[in-house]
Formats: sequence, structure tokens, C-alpha cells
Amino acid sequence: MDSAALMPNLDVHASPRRVSILGATGSVGGSTLDLIARNPQAYDVVALTANTNAVGLAKLAIEHGAGLAVVADESCYADLKDALAGSGVEAAAGSGALIEAAGRPADWIMAAISGAAGLRPTFEAARQGTHLAFANKECLVSAGDVFMQTVAAAQTSLLPVDSEHSAAFQAIDSSPSDSIERIVLTASGGPFRTWSHEQLKRATLADALKHPNWTMGRKITIDSATMMNKGLELIEAYHLFPVERDQLDVLIHPQSIIHCLVEYSDGSVLAQMSSPDMRTPIAYSLAWPRRMWAPTERLDLAKLGELTFEAPDETRFKALRIAREALAKGGSASTVLNAANEVFVAAFLKEEIGFLSISDCVEATMEQAERGFGGQAAVTLDDVLEIDKEARALATRQLELVA
Amino acid sequence: MDSAALMPNLDVHASPRRVSILGATGSVGGSTLDLIARNPQAYDVVALTANTNAVGLAKLAIEHGAGLAVVADESCYADLKDALAGSGVEAAAGSGALIEAAGRPADWIMAAISGAAGLRPTFEAARQGTHLAFANKECLVSAGDVFMQTVAAAQTSLLPVDSEHSAAFQAIDSSPSDSIERIVLTASGGPFRTWSHEQLKRATLADALKHPNWTMGRKITIDSATMMNKGLELIEAYHLFPVERDQLDVLIHPQSIIHCLVEYSDGSVLAQMSSPDMRTPIAYSLAWPRRMWAPTERLDLAKLGELTFEAPDETRFKALRIAREALAKGGSASTVLNAANEVFVAAFLKEEIGFLSISDCVEATMEQAERGFGGQAAVTLDDVLEIDKEARALATRQLELVA
Repeated sequence: MDSAALMPNLDVHASPRRVSILGATGSVGGSTLDLIARNPQAYDVVALTANTNAVGLAKLAIEHGAGLAVVADESCYADLKDALAGSGVEAAAGSGALIEAAGRPADWIMAAISGAAGLRPTFEAARQGTHLAFANKECLVSAGDVFMQTVAAAQTSLLPVDSEHSAAFQAIDSSPSDSIERIVLTASGGPFRTWSHEQLKRATLADALKHPNWTMGRKITIDSATMMNKGLELIEAYHLFPVERDQLDVLIHPQSIIHCLVEYSDGSVLAQMSSPDMRTPIAYSLAWPRRMWAPTERLDLAKLGELTFEAPDETRFKALRIAREALAKGGSASTVLNAANEVFVAAFLKEEIGFLSISDCVEATMEQAERGFGGQAAVTLDDVLEIDKEARALATRQLELVA
Repeated sequence: MDSAALMPNLDVHASPRRVSILGATGSVGGSTLDLIARNPQAYDVVALTANTNAVGLAKLAIEHGAGLAVVADESCYADLKDALAGSGVEAAAGSGALIEAAGRPADWIMAAISGAAGLRPTFEAARQGTHLAFANKECLVSAGDVFMQTVAAAQTSLLPVDSEHSAAFQAIDSSPSDSIERIVLTASGGPFRTWSHEQLKRATLADALKHPNWTMGRKITIDSATMMNKGLELIEAYHLFPVERDQLDVLIHPQSIIHCLVEYSDGSVLAQMSSPDMRTPIAYSLAWPRRMWAPTERLDLAKLGELTFEAPDETRFKALRIAREALAKGGSASTVLNAANEVFVAAFLKEEIGFLSISDCVEATMEQAERGFGGQAAVTLDDVLEIDKEARALATRQLELVA
């Protein structure tokens, strides 16, 4: 079935769902708006935000009849105001306006602002107690305990958009959570899956940026090459799903077709698969608890021929081991992990350090942080941001030693 | 996790579930009782039945504290009575007693009597309006419309035990049924998957009995070699799941790890996998809607290394095409298909006809039946049995022509 006309989704929701998108001009935001445009009767757009792309944001806001458009960078306000002139769309700018957009009443919010910049707006959206689809990793990696407390207090329905976590969400059935034995996130293994340690020593930036299956931003592409990305996803999964730390695992699956496997106590394994296309998990979050038609390439296993699997190698890809250790430690360890990793990936992207130094330096920073502010646990988002700042300072000092 | 002690299932059901097993001395019955014995506080055994194995049945009935034991063959009554002497277990024999056992109040019934002999007791069990786990294919293949009407009228929860249908049941999530695009049953391809048509002409009984992954009865092993088994499963799936005939497909998957894939309108595919062990789907049906621990080998995809897939070849395996045609025709076509197939598989098992003649003869009988009693649709089980009888007579005459 490959025509939208065959499955028009006229009744995805009984009455239109009021939606806001934080990070509307990015890839996830764009796909979300594409799906919304295919079901105009099912969605009303409340607020759209962008970082600096005022013209792109204004175009989307007018096209989708948004009530409010917010650009985070205040210096872009005039451009936004101009582009929206006469449209009837309200314009605003700055971090306060971003928080206001996140807090404007809506039934469903997509939090797709990546990095630390997404933390406050995503927290604000979580406080609404509505459906929160999110593509921001930092909420769970850096601020997992605090974020999940916020979500629980507001009774927010959290809908992960990341393909592995959406897959887990879909493969967890209605049986009691104590029947889950293990959740296994798959990893492509990245461009260096088959490289020896000797080869990895000489890996260049250009080598690391060649991801086999997905086209993504530069930071996450490097995280995929080090496999830190999968380590961060393990930490996210721990917060999202009703399992203990030792019930989470990683499996190398180079074709990236199966995104997650959930193993049950009766020996059954439920897995979610799809062609690598973010519109599938986005559509799932947008229509949940129903499903909607999405214009993605359908999976053809006979054409693919085979799916292959390998155990991960935590010696060659030590980021995976470090992330596991951070998860096991709890407290501020994941916050430090995330901050240090950002610093050293940025340094690698500027070709200031070698590929293997990313994980070595993260590990060294984590050891220093443990001696420094060790078991310190964050109670509020501000605590998290303070730890994050301290960790970045430690990482920057570490960088000065090695770069 | 490989120790029952770690997951004792003390609370599989809030109060003990009263269970009966029709076909207790067979493989499915034995596995069911093994799982029940691991959770004695969760189940009370009401009735157990067997065909002729009176001594085996008596042993099981005493061991599991059954209230009633019934042997279908009346000539085995004395043996059963003797074996149960002093045990307090009630003994009975004959087809009437079998129906009585199926109708004795229970919360969950396993209908595991295979072939036409299982029809009446399974129907009787379905009338109770309780949980009906079933491994009898004929109810759905031969008598699908009538059986599903019986199930709907009694509001019975039907729990398929066949691995492919249990997999579909598990992979169908709670989203509306119109979001399912396709249900794909996997097939190992059997021992002749890679054989040419020329080789198939010379296939012997011994060749056909070598199934690559499962150890099963002789009839079903031959059905697996012709792929009629998968054709019959397509017909069952049509009755069990909310899809149209053209939304059902077959995929060759030699490792038999993925049992079924359910494709959704957003491009997501949910699949159920397990090591090939019937205890997994049996445990699923026994604990449903919860899950229970089962002593099966856990799936290790890294160890398996690969899963492969091919499109089915309906030219070499014409049984698959014939079954699809019977499903498309509706009415009595599937009843005739099943009856004729039984006659010709029996003839092949006696080495009276060649391997390719099984499907050729089934096709010829179906054409004759269509000219004879064509679109005739069964309203009651007796109608089905009458059509079944006529079809067997036609098939037997066909056999006289070719054998």
C-alpha cells in the first residue's frame, strides 16, 4: 500500500489535537510538520520555534497557521517580525519567549531542540501534563532523574522519537513489566565497526563522518562512530523503561533494520523494525495511541536478503563501557559523561584531538569529576546545569593537557 | 536469566485458573502440563483427555490432581479405570465423554487434539465463552466461518498456540486494526527449499521427513515440505486477525527465528521471535494476558549471526498457490482443500504417490469439487463434516486414478 489516498487517516484523533513544535526548522520538526500537513483536519498548530532561522520559521508558521512563532536568538526578532507582517501570526524572541511557547496550552508537544539549549523548554513542556514527544537526548542523559520526576509529577505521557526508544516503546506490550527480561538496543556499529584498534588510532575526521545508514548532524555522527551514542541511549532507556541497569544491552546490527528487541520471561522476543526513516517514529508519536499513515519506504526483507548481528566490542569501543559505568554509578556521572563528551567531540570536529582521544579524555574527566564532586546528585534542573558547567570546565582543562 | 527461582510467577493469576487439556498425552499437552506443574498455585486441573494412551493419561491425571480423565477410544476404558483405581480421579471413555470433558466448567481450555477428531470437542470448548487456547488447525481451516461464529457468539477469547499465529497475536498492538497493512507469516521453506522442480520429482518419503528446524508429527512434516502447511496457516490467519485476504503474505526465513511480522501504516513492523520451542507460545497462551516464565533457550542473535529471507516460490511449491486460491474462493473451498490434502499426504506416507502428486491431486480434487458442490457454504459443523466427507470420497476416487 503506497498511496495516502488508501488510508486517509481522517479520524486519527476524534477532535483536532493542538500541537506545538520546539525546533520546527530542524529535520525532526520538518518531518513532523510534513505529517501534520497530510492530516490538516487532525491537528491545530499552536506554537513553532526555531533557533536563528527566522525566515524559515515564518514560512512554516504561515503555511501551517500557527498562533505563535518564537526565535530563540533575540537578534533575529526583526527578521521574524518582518517575515510575519500581515500574517496574523504572533512573533516573539529570546529564551523567555521560548519557555512561554513551550508552556502555551497544547495537547501534544514535540521537543526537538537538541543539546543543552533544549533542556529548559523541554522541561517546561513536560510540566504541562500532556503528550510530550521528544528528540532531545540531554533531558534523560544529563538530567534523567530530575526530568523523570517532573514527568511523573505532571503525569505527562512521554513519547520517545529516537528510533531505538520508539522501537522499545512499541515492543513493550501490555503484560506486566516484571515479565521483561531484557531490552536490547541495536547499533549499526558505525563506520569503524570492522576497524582494528591500530586502524582506529589513525581514523580521521572524514572517516568518522561516513555513517553507513543514517544522515545525521556532525556531533551525533561522531557519537555513532565512537559508539558513545549507543551508550547515551542505554542511559535514556534506563530512565524510560521499567528495567534495571543490568537488563539493558546493546547488539551490533549493521543494517539498522531492527531498532530494538524486548525479551520476555516466556522466551518471546518482540522487535520493532523499519527502513531507516525518522518519519516512522515521528508518525508513531504524533498519532499515539493510534497510528497514522506515513510516506516511508516499506520494509522488504526478501529484497534485503539478510540481517546480521554481532556482540559489541567494548574494548575497541570503550565509550560503550564508560557509558555503562556512568549508568551504574548514577548520581551526576551521566551529566559529567555527556558534558565531557560534548567538549571532546567538538575538539575532534576541530581536529584538535585524535579519534581515540575522545573516549580516553571523557574517561579521564569522569575520574577527575568523581574525585572532585563525586556522588553529588541533582535535585533541580539548576543543579544539573551547575554540574554540567563544572564538568565542562574540567574537560576543557583536560583538553589543554592533550590537544 | 535461566533459573525459575528468579522469576517464580507466584502471581501469574490472582486466583487459581481452572484448566482442562484436550489431548493431554501429546506434545502440546505435555508441555502445557509441564508449565502448569511449575506454577502449581496458579492452576487447578479440571479435565484431561487422550485418544488411546490410557496409562499415560492416568499417570498425568494423578500427578496433576485432575478431576476427570477421559479416553476417546472406548476400548481403552478398562485400562484407564484400572490405572486410576483408588486415585479419586473420575474416569470416562468415548466421544460423548470427550464432549462432556470439553464442556466441564473451566477458565482456560487447551484444545490440542489434532485432525478432524478435534473438531467437535474444540467447538464444545469454544461454546464455554472462556479462554480457549488451541493447536487444532482444522477448526479454522475446515470450519473457519462456523467456528468463528461460535467463538463470537460465546465471546470466547481465542488464544492461538501455533507459533506463527501466537506471534501475530503478540505483534498486533493496541492501535486500531485499520492501521495494519499486512501480516506476514514466515516459513522455513522446509527440506526442499533449494530443490529444483526436477529434483522435487524424485523426492522420497525419507527426504520429505527431514525438517530443518522443528520435530513434528509425520503429517505436518510433509505439509511443511509441500508448504501446504503455510497455506493452511494463511487460511487460519485470515479467520483470526482483522485483515483482508490480500493483506496476508508468506516470507521464507530458513532459520525459523522470526515467526510473524505485522506491518503498520506508519512503516513500523512488529515481529515476534524465539528459539523454535513450542513452550514459548504455550506459556504465552497459558498466562495471557500476563506472561509467565518458561524454561526455553533464550534467543542469542549475536551467536546466530544472521537471519535470512527469500520470497516464496509458488511455482515449485504450488500448494501455497492452491491454498491462496481456496482462501480467495471462500465457501467450502478450504474444507475441500484440507480433506483432499489429508488423503494425499496419507497416500504419500504409504508411498502410493510421488511427492509432487500430493499438490497435483489436491488441485484436481478441488476442481472436481467445484464442479460438483462448488460454492456450497457450511452453516453448521455438521455441514462442514458432510462437505469434508464428500471431498474425501472425491479424493479417494482421484487416488485410484493415479496411485
